[in-house]
Amino acid sequence: MTSLQNDTLIRALLRQPTEYTPVWLMRQAGRYLPEYNQTRRGAGSFLALCKSPALATEVTLQPLDRFGLDAAILFSDILTIPDAMGLGLYFAEGEGPKFERPLRDAAAIRKLAAPDPLGELRYVIDAVSEIRRALAGRVPLIGFAGSPYTLACYMVEGGASDDFRNIKALLYGEPALLHRILEVNAQAVAAYLNAQIEAGAQAVMIFDTWGGNLAHDAYRRFSLDYIQRVLADLRREHDGERVPSIVFTKGGGLWLEAIAACGCDCVGIDWTLDLAEARRRVGARVALQGNLDPAVLLSSVDAVRRETARVLAEFGAGPGHVFNLGHGISQFTPPEHVRELVQEVHEQSRKYHL
Amino acid sequence: MTSLQNDTLIRALLRQPTEYTPVWLMRQAGRYLPEYNQTRRGAGSFLALCKSPALATEVTLQPLDRFGLDAAILFSDILTIPDAMGLGLYFAEGEGPKFERPLRDAAAIRKLAAPDPLGELRYVIDAVSEIRRALAGRVPLIGFAGSPYTLACYMVEGGASDDFRNIKALLYGEPALLHRILEVNAQAVAAYLNAQIEAGAQAVMIFDTWGGNLAHDAYRRFSLDYIQRVLADLRREHDGERVPSIVFTKGGGLWLEAIAACGCDCVGIDWTLDLAEARRRVGARVALQGNLDPAVLLSSVDAVRRETARVLAEFGAGPGHVFNLGHGISQFTPPEHVRELVQEVHEQSRKYHL
Repeated sequence: MTSLQNDTLIRALLRQPTEYTPVWLMRQAGRYLPEYNQTRRGAGSFLALCKSPALATEVTLQPLDRFGLDAAILFSDILTIPDAMGLGLYFAEGEGPKFERPLRDAAAIRKLAAPDPLGELRYVIDAVSEIRRALAGRVPLIGFAGSPYTLACYMVEGGASDDFRNIKALLYGEPALLHRILEVNAQAVAAYLNAQIEAGAQAVMIFDTWGGNLAHDAYRRFSLDYIQRVLADLRREHDGERVPSIVFTKGGGLWLEAIAACGCDCVGIDWTLDLAEARRRVGARVALQGNLDPAVLLSSVDAVRRETARVLAEFGAGPGHVFNLGHGISQFTPPEHVRELVQEVHEQSRKYHL
Repeated sequence: MTSLQNDTLIRALLRQPTEYTPVWLMRQAGRYLPEYNQTRRGAGSFLALCKSPALATEVTLQPLDRFGLDAAILFSDILTIPDAMGLGLYFAEGEGPKFERPLRDAAAIRKLAAPDPLGELRYVIDAVSEIRRALAGRVPLIGFAGSPYTLACYMVEGGASDDFRNIKALLYGEPALLHRILEVNAQAVAAYLNAQIEAGAQAVMIFDTWGGNLAHDAYRRFSLDYIQRVLADLRREHDGERVPSIVFTKGGGLWLEAIAACGCDCVGIDWTLDLAEARRRVGARVALQGNLDPAVLLSSVDAVRRETARVLAEFGAGPGHVFNLGHGISQFTPPEHVRELVQEVHEQSRKYHL
């Protein structure tokens, strides 16, 4: 494999010194980019785009060609795993992801099995290999998966939800059934991420988008414990290089200490938590990734500069900060605001790395 | 005015000793009750129900007649204020509240004025008087309003939102315009709550449903500061009795110390925070209200008992706890689970009040 020309992200994730703060953006390849929309129209649908390694490679590289980002992230979707389990993923226009066969009864839950990442999910692993080749060492490639609990939310609800009442009814009323789903999901996520690492992912991220909807004790038992199992099963090295891991529970700021102790190298933080306070709370245990409110990118160049400077100042001096948003970038973001953001991070952060 | 036969809630809010932990539920008069649905059908619409003091009184009392709750809460909606400001509130079936004329331009924002609570909002104040008479001292009546920021979210977005991009663009790009809205809202909320207190509300609650979507520093400047202004303008006594205040920012657990210092008597807590930890963090400054996950009520009688016992044990011994959910009750709740909850709180809590 080619060695990295820019390994700033990897060093920051491992809390090693860097010359500046590396930056990438969740959902950086996406609908705010005209070239993405063009490729997507050509592909016919979002799923077709995910399922074509060539097109996934094309859109993964688009934001790198525009902005000087310090990482690429695999273009895919967290719901590829439940789709490969046979739940029938589809996207209803304007409604987000849905499953044709949500998991609602004990029989279906008992039949659930982890998919072979080199079987039904081969298209994702092929995309990782192809993106890695296309990157040719420019920046590291981040692989990713949803957390076992977040996948379970979609699998049980059958799509996004504003009250999560089906999975919560299971959690409180039939916890053993939910634990069964989570065990299978944890196996599936670990195997999937390991296959991504073997295919060339140089860091991995677990997205726990919905863990923040849980009660404090339920979060530990139904989300964090299973993230911990995934991490325990992950390859930590590939080709002689450390493969750092990032865990992001949206809305998990109250549980930061517990997340920082789960075995990850870096914790993703949303904008509700001050990075200075986060740093005090985790000490030297983990790096931190975040945490600009993505809505800042909707306002003005001045606001982008001011709020970027604020986030950098909150983290302060020293290694261990990966600049990112606190959630995926909005489709309404003007691309020139992203350019401004990346430039500001690269320029303004140098004084914190002397 | 009649003196209270059951003043447990008021004493708990003021951190005075009680014999048991008082309990009421956010949105306790609502769609999970068949008698509510019947009255609503008769009224024709949710807004017609809110606007009739007689019907608002009828539905306010319905849950008290069924369950031994320790408080009544005015049946109304937080959006009565922006409706009275002329924004044109309506409810699209299955879509939640909307405004015909959302606040999007500087001219409309400059024209905004606080409504006279005895003018356009007279129907709410009349409902307070009528409910208070109908209660005849059984339990205290809680009045309420939305927080200035939460009202602004609806006013600017024109309804509920999953990204709040219009108000956030204003916040980051044109903060002076948002401050103008928030100043008017703070005046309006203070006048509205004072009129409710004069009409007979014996405690008041400020619902900051959307404050949790703000970045940590923005929360203080755009939500908490204006809640503090409202509280500073509130009558703290009426008819020789203290009128305690409750502030609830959903998703505000990270900011608990700041909220507890804003001038309220009690802080509402959602289920993401352990009440034992919350109590350590606020000490003797305020009472705490919460914090059962409303989804517990969807599962089973056993789960209701177990999780109710857990919440009581987390708060532990001593005064200053008002049992509630961490969010409004779900329309899918079986009423018999509410009966079980209220009974369990009353029975199981006695050992913490010896």
